[in-house]
Amino acid sequence: MVRVGIVGATGYAGAELVRILSGHPDVELTVLTSRQYAGERFDKVYPSMTGVVDLICEKLSIDSFCERTDVVFIALPHKVAMQLVPDFIKRDKKVIDLSADFRFKDVSLYESFYQEHTAADLLEKAVYGLCEIYFEKIKRATLIGNPGCYPTSVILPLVPLIKSNFLDVNSIIADSKSGVTGAGRSLSLATHFCEVNESFKAYKVAEHRHNPEMEEVLSIEAGRPVKITFVPHLVPMTRGMLTTIYANLVKDVSSEEIQNCLDSFYSERFFVRICRDGRMPDTLHVRGTNFCDIGFKLEERNNRIILISAIDNLVKGASGQAVQNMNIMLGLDETTGLKNIPFTI
Amino acid sequence: MVRVGIVGATGYAGAELVRILSGHPDVELTVLTSRQYAGERFDKVYPSMTGVVDLICEKLSIDSFCERTDVVFIALPHKVAMQLVPDFIKRDKKVIDLSADFRFKDVSLYESFYQEHTAADLLEKAVYGLCEIYFEKIKRATLIGNPGCYPTSVILPLVPLIKSNFLDVNSIIADSKSGVTGAGRSLSLATHFCEVNESFKAYKVAEHRHNPEMEEVLSIEAGRPVKITFVPHLVPMTRGMLTTIYANLVKDVSSEEIQNCLDSFYSERFFVRICRDGRMPDTLHVRGTNFCDIGFKLEERNNRIILISAIDNLVKGASGQAVQNMNIMLGLDETTGLKNIPFTI
Amino acid sequence: MVRVGIVGATGYAGAELVRILSGHPDVELTVLTSRQYAGERFDKVYPSMTGVVDLICEKLSIDSFCERTDVVFIALPHKVAMQLVPDFIKRDKKVIDLSADFRFKDVSLYESFYQEHTAADLLEKAVYGLCEIYFEKIKRATLIGNPGCYPTSVILPLVPLIKSNFLDVNSIIADSKSGVTGAGRSLSLATHFCEVNESFKAYKVAEHRHNPEMEEVLSIEAGRPVKITFVPHLVPMTRGMLTTIYANLVKDVSSEEIQNCLDSFYSERFFVRICRDGRMPDTLHVRGTNFCDIGFKLEERNNRIILISAIDNLVKGASGQAVQNMNIMLGLDETTGLKNIPFTI
Amino acid sequence: MVRVGIVGATGYAGAELVRILSGHPDVELTVLTSRQYAGERFDKVYPSMTGVVDLICEKLSIDSFCERTDVVFIALPHKVAMQLVPDFIKRDKKVIDLSADFRFKDVSLYESFYQEHTAADLLEKAVYGLCEIYFEKIKRATLIGNPGCYPTSVILPLVPLIKSNFLDVNSIIADSKSGVTGAGRSLSLATHFCEVNESFKAYKVAEHRHNPEMEEVLSIEAGRPVKITFVPHLVPMTRGMLTTIYANLVKDVSSEEIQNCLDSFYSERFFVRICRDGRMPDTLHVRGTNFCDIGFKLEERNNRIILISAIDNLVKGASGQAVQNMNIMLGLDETTGLKNIPFTI
Repeated sequence: MVRVGIVGATGYAGAELVRILSGHPDVELTVLTSRQYAGERFDKVYPSMTGVVDLICEKLSIDSFCERTDVVFIALPHKVAMQLVPDFIKRDKKVIDLSADFRFKDVSLYESFYQEHTAADLLEKAVYGLCEIYFEKIKRATLIGNPGCYPTSVILPLVPLIKSNFLDVNSIIADSKSGVTGAGRSLSLATHFCEVNESFKAYKVAEHRHNPEMEEVLSIEAGRPVKITFVPHLVPMTRGMLTTIYANLVKDVSSEEIQNCLDSFYSERFFVRICRDGRMPDTLHVRGTNFCDIGFKLEERNNRIILISAIDNLVKGASGQAVQNMNIMLGLDETTGLKNIPFTI
Repeated sequence: MVRVGIVGATGYAGAELVRILSGHPDVELTVLTSRQYAGERFDKVYPSMTGVVDLICEKLSIDSFCERTDVVFIALPHKVAMQLVPDFIKRDKKVIDLSADFRFKDVSLYESFYQEHTAADLLEKAVYGLCEIYFEKIKRATLIGNPGCYPTSVILPLVPLIKSNFLDVNSIIADSKSGVTGAGRSLSLATHFCEVNESFKAYKVAEHRHNPEMEEVLSIEAGRPVKITFVPHLVPMTRGMLTTIYANLVKDVSSEEIQNCLDSFYSERFFVRICRDGRMPDTLHVRGTNFCDIGFKLEERNNRIILISAIDNLVKGASGQAVQNMNIMLGLDETTGLKNIPFTI
Repeated sequence: MVRVGIVGATGYAGAELVRILSGHPDVELTVLTSRQYAGERFDKVYPSMTGVVDLICEKLSIDSFCERTDVVFIALPHKVAMQLVPDFIKRDKKVIDLSADFRFKDVSLYESFYQEHTAADLLEKAVYGLCEIYFEKIKRATLIGNPGCYPTSVILPLVPLIKSNFLDVNSIIADSKSGVTGAGRSLSLATHFCEVNESFKAYKVAEHRHNPEMEEVLSIEAGRPVKITFVPHLVPMTRGMLTTIYANLVKDVSSEEIQNCLDSFYSERFFVRICRDGRMPDTLHVRGTNFCDIGFKLEERNNRIILISAIDNLVKGASGQAVQNMNIMLGLDETTGLKNIPFTI
Repeated sequence: MVRVGIVGATGYAGAELVRILSGHPDVELTVLTSRQYAGERFDKVYPSMTGVVDLICEKLSIDSFCERTDVVFIALPHKVAMQLVPDFIKRDKKVIDLSADFRFKDVSLYESFYQEHTAADLLEKAVYGLCEIYFEKIKRATLIGNPGCYPTSVILPLVPLIKSNFLDVNSIIADSKSGVTGAGRSLSLATHFCEVNESFKAYKVAEHRHNPEMEEVLSIEAGRPVKITFVPHLVPMTRGMLTTIYANLVKDVSSEEIQNCLDSFYSERFFVRICRDGRMPDTLHVRGTNFCDIGFKLEERNNRIILISAIDNLVKGASGQAVQNMNIMLGLDETTGLKNIPFTI
C-alpha cells in the first residue's frame, strides 16, 4: 500500500481527495492536515464520512508528515503551496500540487498574473498534469502542477483539432460555466446561497487567471502562439462545468473528419468520452466522475465549429485528475480508484 | 379603461400577462381563454392569484371575445396564432402576438424555419415589437409580432454598436443561457425537475429558430447581411436569461467610446440600463422586471468586445415587452403598469 | 407624504423594506442607514434597484435622522435595536422594530432567551405587531415589536381555533420549514450555497428563540399557558416559510366547523387566505407577497387536526408586516403599498 | 457470479439499481427490461452510463429473462408487479419487488389502500425487507417486499424506542420531507421544474398510502396497534428524505438512556448511524449512500422526544436497500457493493 497524505484536507478539493483516496484499493490515507480544524476528527467537519474515514486533522509538520507518507497532495491556495513544495521534494516525496504554482513553464507569465515565484527552480522539473496529453511525462515526474478546472475543460477538446490544423488559433473563444464549488468553501457574498440561487452571471470577464494557463499549454501544443478570449460564468448548482468553445475553421472539413479526429486521439483514454448520435455533453452526466465528455457541431454557413465539454470541476477539474496523476506516477492503471459508477440522476 | 383579453392565458407567458395587466392602471382584464382549463377559475390554475384575479377561463369564441375587448394578446404556439390573428384584425382589434408568426419580414425565411405561412398578407402590416428600436412604428401599429426572448437579449446590446460601425458583423457569436420557464409549462423530460436540477447543457446548438429572427432584424439595422453563431443553454433556475456576445472590432475604439455609444443610444429608454463602474449584468438583478441590463468589456489584446445582457425571459423577453408594446400603441407612457419595484433578493 | 427612514437598510429585511416602501404611494423614503455600506449608493449594494432608488447609505446619526423622518423602521439584530429605540421614542417618532427586543410582555422571558433588557420600561408601551390579531392596539401604538417569521406562521392559524376551544393546547407541535433568507445576509457556512443546496435539515431543535415568543402570545390569547414543541428546518430555497401544525382536538368537530371558524375569523382580513376545495398552502403561492395562506385537514381516526400555513418570510414574516403595521398606525388602509400582484411562477 | 436482471430498469429506482449493481463485485447484470425504451441502449437513456454499462433494454419475456438470471429485481408500479411476481417465483427465482404489492401482511389493509390483490397467496411467503429489523427472515426469504421510502425513514428510528416501551404509541406524529426523485420519472406538473423550484408544500396530508404500511410494521413490533399521523412534504431537491418524528414519553428517561437504546440496538448495523455530539441528520450527509442517519432531542418540559432520520430516498429508501436484501438472501456481507464513499459536498 502506498501511504498518502493530504495537505489542506478540509477545503472542497481536499475533501474530494479524501473521498476518492478512501476508496482507492492501492493506497492508505495516513495524514490529513487542516489549519482551521486541527485536532478535530475529519468526519466532524464532513459528517457524511462518519463510519468511513477515521482520521483526525492535524497541523502540518513537514517531518512528521513525511515519515508517514510516500505521496503528498497539496490542496492549498497558490503562494502557500510553493512555500511548502520544496520541502517535500527535498525529502524525495512525490508531490501533486493542486494550486497554480507549478502549472506554468514561463515564470514571468506566472508572475504577471499571480506573484513572485519563490520556487522557480522547480518549474523545469514540474509536469503539467493534464493526464490525457502529458501521460508519458507524468510517468516520470516527481512534481505535478495539477491543471485548473477551466483549462482542463478548454484544452482537452481543442488539442486534437489544433494538432490537426483544423482551427484558426486566433479565433478561439471559450465561454465557460461553473458550479459553485469552483469558488471553494471560503465564505463570501459570492457564495451566499441567496446571492447565487436563481442567479446567472459572468465574472472576471476576460481577466481570469486560468486564461494564460490555457494559452501557454495550447501554444506549446500548437507550436505557435494561441490566444483565447475566455469568459467564465457562475451556475446555481454545486458541481459541474460546461465549456462552449467557438473557433473558425481554416479548411473544409466534414463532421466525420472531426468525429474521427477526436475519436482516434482519445481512443485509448477511458476518461474522455466523445459524444455521438447527436448527444451533447451535460454536467449531470459527469457529476461525481472523472469523465470529460466532449461534443461538437459544425456550423458550415459560418465556417465555424462549436465544441462543448463537460466535467465535474471537483473531479476531472481537480481531485480526480490529481489521483489519476498519482496512478500514472506510480505505474498503476490510470483509472484505479476512479471508476465509481456515475449517478443516473 | 381599455378592455383587454388574453388568448392562451394559462401558459407561463399568458399567466405573466395576467400578472402584469392585473396591476395596470389603465386597463381592465375582461377575458381569459384556455383550452385546457376552460370553465375553471384562473386562480384555481394559479392559486397565487386567489383574491387578486376573479376571472374564469373560457374557450375562445372570436365574436364573444371581440365584443368584450379592445386589445388582444395572443400567447399561443406559433402556427395556431396565425390561424386566429386575421379574425381579430378584421374586427379592428389591436393585436399583440407573442408567437413567432408575425416577427419576420421575409416570409420564406419564416417558412424555412417554421412552416407554411397562412396569413402572409399580414406580415407587411405587422411591426416587430422591439420597443426600444421600433418605437415609432409601434405607435402606429395594429399588429405586433412580439420578439422572441433570445433575440431581445441579443439585438438590444448589438444595435447601437452595429449602427456605429464598431463591429465586424461576420464575427458575432451569441452564447445564451436561459431559465426553464423559457421551455413553457408543457410537460417533457427536458423540464422534469430532476433532469434539470444540478444540470447545465446546451441545446439546439446552432440550430435554434430564434437565430434567423435575430439575423433578420440585425441585417435590416446594419444595412447588410449579419450572420450570428447562436448557442442557447439551459440554466437550472426558473426565470432569467443572460447572453454573452463576442464580436471583433473593426476599428480602434476605447471603453469610453463604447460606454458613450450605449449610454446615448438608450438615454431615453427607461428599461435599458447600461451598467457602469465595472458592474456586470446578473439575471437576479432583473428578475420579475422589464429591464434589460447591458454591460461590456473590451479585450484589447484580441481586439474583441464582450457584450453581456440580462433580461427576465418572461418579462422583457415576452409578456412585459408585450404590455410595453400595448402602452406604446395606446399612446400611454411605455412604462405604465411595468414599474413594479424589483426584488433585491 | 409621510417621511420614512430605515435603520439597517442593507440586510435582507432592510432591503425588503426599501423595495416595499419605494412603491408605497403615501410615503417618501428619506433616509437609509448602513454601517457596512455608509457612503455608498444603495443601488450599488443592490444593483436591481438601479434607476429605481436613488439614495446613498449613511451612518446613523439620530438627530439628523429624526429631522428627516416621521416613521422609523429598525432592521437591526436584537440588542442593538433596544439601544436605539428609546432615542427615537423620545423624539416622538413612530417606531417599528423588526428585532425581538420589543415583542415580549414578560421581560424575564425575554431575558432568559436573549439578554438583559436595557429598555424594559418601553415594553409596556410596545405593541406586538401581528396585524390581524392586534389591529386595534396597533392603531394607537407608537412602538411596534414586529413579530418573528416563525411566530407569524404559527400564531395566525392557531388563534381562531384556540379561541373557539377546539384544541388541546398542551398537544401542539409546530414543524416549520424556512427558506435561506431567514438566516440573513451575514456570511456563515450555514448559508454557503454548496452546504445548503440539495440539503434538508432541522436546526435549533426545540430550542429556537421564537418558541417562547409564540407561546407568550398564544397563552395570552388562550387565557392559559400554551406550550408548543417547535422544530425549524432549512429548505434549499431563497424565500418562503411553511409551517405544519399538529394538535389534538378536544371535542367532536367537523371540517365545516373548522372551515367556518377560520373563514369568519379572517373574513375581513385581506392578507389571510383560507384555502378551500382541497387546496393546500405552497410557499410558491405567496412568494413576494404579504399573504398568509392557511389550510387544514381533520384526521378523524386520530382525533387530530393538521394546520398548514405559508408565508413569505421576508414579507408577511418581516418587512411586509412591518409596513402593514405602519399603515395601521397612520390610519391608512392596511393594504396600501402591499398589493403588488403575486407571481404565478 | 450471480446473474441479476431488472424489470423496469429505466425509471429512477430501476436506474439506481443499475448503478449499484454495475459496481457490485459478486454480481453480473444480465438483463434490463423497459417497455418504453425496448431496443435502445441503456446508456442512451442515461448517458452518464456511457462506457460503463453496455446493455440494451428489452421487452420483458419471462422465460428468456429467467434463463439468464438467478435474482430478479422488479421496479414497476404496484399492481403491475403482482401480475409478474408469481411467474418468477414459479421458476424458482429470488425476487425483490420494489412496489407495495408484497409489503403487507394483512391483505385487506392492502386492498383498502391499493386494489384487489391478485397474488394474495404469496403474501405469507413474502418478507418485509427492512434489513436492520428483519435480517433473519430475509436470509431465508425468496420473495422480498422492499419497504417504501417513508416507512423506512419512520420505522428505523422508532423500533428501538417502541420495543423499550419509552413511547406513547398513540401520540406519534411523523412529518416527512422528500426530494423530487420520490415522485419518479413520469411527467406531471408536480415534477415540472418551475412548479417545484422555490416551492415547499405538503401533499396527500394524512392520506398517503405509506401510512398503513408503517403502522402495520410498527404494530407488529409493538405488539399492539400503533397509529401515526403522517404528513409528507416535497423539497426542491433531487435526492434525500428527512423525517421528523414527535412522540410523548411514557416514563422518565434521560438523553443517555435514549442514546444507549439506539446505539445498542444498531451497534452491529453498518448502515444505521446514530448521531452524537449534538449533530443532527442532514440529507446532504447520506446522499448517494445506503446510510440512515438518526438523531434525537429530548424536550423535557413537554415530556416529548423528537427523532430525526435522514436517508437517500433512492438508496436506503429503495434500490440500495433492495441490493442489501439481495446480499442477505445470498449470504453475502450485507454491505457488499454498497460501500461507495459518500460525497462530502
